[in-house]
Amino acid sequence: MEQMTEGDLTAEVLARLDATPDPRLREVMRSLVTHLHAFAREVRLTDAEWMTGIRFLTDAGHITDDVRQEFILLSDTLGLSSLVDLINHGADEPGPTEPTILGPFYVPGSPERAYDESMVEYADGGEPAVLVGRVLAADGSPIAGAELDVWQNAATGFYAVQQPDEQPATNLRGLYRTDAEGRFRIRTVRPVPYPIPDDGPVGRLLTDTGRHPWRAAHVHLIVSADGFEPVVTHLFDRTSAYLDSDTVFGVKESLVRDFVPGGDGVLVCEHDVVLRMSKAG
Amino acid sequence: MEQMTEGDLTAEVLARLDATPDPRLREVMRSLVTHLHAFAREVRLTDAEWMTGIRFLTDAGHITDDVRQEFILLSDTLGLSSLVDLINHGADEPGPTEPTILGPFYVPGSPERAYDESMVEYADGGEPAVLVGRVLAADGSPIAGAELDVWQNAATGFYAVQQPDEQPATNLRGLYRTDAEGRFRIRTVRPVPYPIPDDGPVGRLLTDTGRHPWRAAHVHLIVSADGFEPVVTHLFDRTSAYLDSDTVFGVKESLVRDFVPGGDGVLVCEHDVVLRMSKAG
Repeated sequence: MEQMTEGDLTAEVLARLDATPDPRLREVMRSLVTHLHAFAREVRLTDAEWMTGIRFLTDAGHITDDVRQEFILLSDTLGLSSLVDLINHGADEPGPTEPTILGPFYVPGSPERAYDESMVEYADGGEPAVLVGRVLAADGSPIAGAELDVWQNAATGFYAVQQPDEQPATNLRGLYRTDAEGRFRIRTVRPVPYPIPDDGPVGRLLTDTGRHPWRAAHVHLIVSADGFEPVVTHLFDRTSAYLDSDTVFGVKESLVRDFVPGGDGVLVCEHDVVLRMSKAG
Repeated sequence: MEQMTEGDLTAEVLARLDATPDPRLREVMRSLVTHLHAFAREVRLTDAEWMTGIRFLTDAGHITDDVRQEFILLSDTLGLSSLVDLINHGADEPGPTEPTILGPFYVPGSPERAYDESMVEYADGGEPAVLVGRVLAADGSPIAGAELDVWQNAATGFYAVQQPDEQPATNLRGLYRTDAEGRFRIRTVRPVPYPIPDDGPVGRLLTDTGRHPWRAAHVHLIVSADGFEPVVTHLFDRTSAYLDSDTVFGVKESLVRDFVPGGDGVLVCEHDVVLRMSKAG
């Protein structure tokens, strides 16, 4: 009697998916099964390794709650988040500011802050810094009234949302707007490197693969303006450790900037943001 | 400035994995990342679809507990469990009985039962049946003293482990041994089709892909003997529904058998099991 081959089995699973009513779900599931099976065949996955994978996913599910998302950490550390970002927001021509991942520490509803206002609400010993620059269209013309939703960690290494008993909830968060010449000016402190939460299965996987859990120092920005595509991006400190080994693959060379001492002892970081015209606009 | 491409990003993640101390883990993770990224690029995975995946895994993690294993159900219904089974236990030559998946309802430590003893401990209205056959080596010679660890569901559709308040814990479970001529004889009831647990994310995925949650009627067997490779397998009822659409891809044509009315009104199912010589033996 004919025995089933590995190829027969994969073909049977793919055929079973043909009944999927939604054509996009069918396409996604067929590709997922094709690659999942190809992976298992390629490495000749053993029973014990399969069970290790089941346990890993189970542990990740059990450590995940309202404030901890281990599956996003997994996606981030496997470079999947950055890849999906590039697929959906990669520039088709050079010029616009490159996007990076949103990350798990974004909190909507930051307070509106005036031009040159400080977003420091907690004395953390960080180095005073000011972020200055312009928001521009691809042709170099300034965009007045563009919004910058900005957030970063304190010198403690933590975001406000991670230290609710320590930092004010709105510390180092702010909604800024560009002036008539498209300029912004943000008073803050220098960001510092920090490890992603590494006490769960993703942390163990990083250890087992000889990797560290650190992210290079950065400030998060979501920049938007009427008639333009919003960009979710970072600004990295050129002197930071981990620029070449950021554990979530978020660093792009075009986003690395210098923090230069200003006359008043405050570091100045210049960073222009270029937006792409909205397809609808 | 050069912008990062999708290919650059995948290469960077793969390079990062080169530090993995264990060569096998390095091989598995490199293949996993390669296929995960290829999947995302191939379907142009959107931000919203990525988030749907994150939520799916989170839901699966949260419904998983000591008696419910949603990630194994996921692996089963995507055909991965059967593929891993085939990779590790597929016959390299025709002859030995084909393996199938263990499934989530195996409980070790079934009671030893004598030749022709019944494993029915609960009146479930099922059709009385007897499973008879021999355990053989590939050359056709009988194996005396081979062990058959047998379990199946009741006519209620459930395994004893699923109905702890209803069925005795050892109902429809038994450890049988072959006699001097390699024969076994197991008194039981006819197995019935049943749906896998479908009230979680895997059930929703089955619905969304136009699939049903049913397994074809079967009896589980783990057959082992000194000097031979043990086989984890099923015996399927030829008249069962879902033989051609078993939701976990467990059916193999060579394992389908007839339940034939015997003289005494008891169904008889004949099934010989052929074991492969142990590589060590």
